[in-house]
Amino acid sequence: MKLILSGSIAILISMITWSCTETQKNDSDKMGSEMMIRIAEIEIYPQYFDEYVSILKEEAAASVQLESGVICIFPMFIEKNPSQIRLIEIYASRKDYESHLKTPHFLKYKTSTTEMIKSLDLIDMESIDPESMSQIFSKMK
Amino acid sequence: MKLILSGSIAILISMITWSCTETQKNDSDKMGSEMMIRIAEIEIYPQYFDEYVSILKEEAAASVQLESGVICIFPMFIEKNPSQIRLIEIYASRKDYESHLKTPHFLKYKTSTTEMIKSLDLIDMESIDPESMSQIFSKMK
Repeated sequence: MKLILSGSIAILISMITWSCTETQKNDSDKMGSEMMIRIAEIEIYPQYFDEYVSILKEEAAASVQLESGVICIFPMFIEKNPSQIRLIEIYASRKDYESHLKTPHFLKYKTSTTEMIKSLDLIDMESIDPESMSQIFSKMK
Repeated sequence: MKLILSGSIAILISMITWSCTETQKNDSDKMGSEMMIRIAEIEIYPQYFDEYVSILKEEAAASVQLESGVICIFPMFIEKNPSQIRLIEIYASRKDYESHLKTPHFLKYKTSTTEMIKSLDLIDMESIDPESMSQIFSKMK
C-alpha cells in the first residue's frame, strides 16, 4: 500500500508542477518580443489631484483586471511634486494597446480627465533585459 | 486503502496551498508602507552604450537575486534616444536601499561606469495604489 501511496503522491506532484510550469510559460509568452513598454509623463493641474488620482486608480486597476493584453499599468507621482504623474505601461503587443484605447474604462478615464491634464508625453521604452522580465518582477506577485 | 490515499492527498494539497499562501504573504509584507520607489534618469555618453548596458544588466539581476530587500530593478532605455536610461527601482525600505549601496555588485557597477555617465537624476516616487501592488504586477511573475 505504501508503494501505491508513494506512487500516487509522485503523480500528483508531477501534475501540480506541470500545471505551474505551463501557467508560467503562458505568462512568459505574453512578454515576448512584441511587448510594448511606455513611460507616460503627465502633468495635471494641482487642484484636481485627488479627483484625478481616484479616476486613474480605477482605470489602471480595471485595465489590468479585464484586459489580458495589459500586462501592467503602474501609476505613481513624484514625491516632491505630486502634480507630476508617471505611469509604467506594459502591453503584450501594439495591437493590445490599440484595443485598450477602445475599452469603456479607458474612454471614461480619457473624457473625464481631459480638463485636468496640463501636459502629456508618451515615451516608448525598450527593456534592457527582456529575457529576465519574469525574474525582475518575481517578488511583485 | 482508498480512504487513506484520499486523506494523504488532501493533507498534501493543504500543505502545498499553505506554503504558497505563506510565500505570497511574506512577499506582500515586503511591499508595505516603508517601501521606497524611485525612477532613476541616467544619461550616458553614447559611445559606451553596449558596455554600460551589459554592466547594468548584470548589476540589476544580481541585486534582485541576492538581496531580499530589493523588490525590483527594471532597466530600460528610451527607444528614440538610447543614451537615456531609465530604471524603476523598488526597495522594501530605505534601510534596504542603504544596504544595497554597500553590496559588492553595486560598488562594482558604480566604479566601472563612473566615466560613462553624463548625468544622473534620482526621483523619489509614491505609488498611487500601494494596496494593489501585487495585483498590478500579477501578470509579470
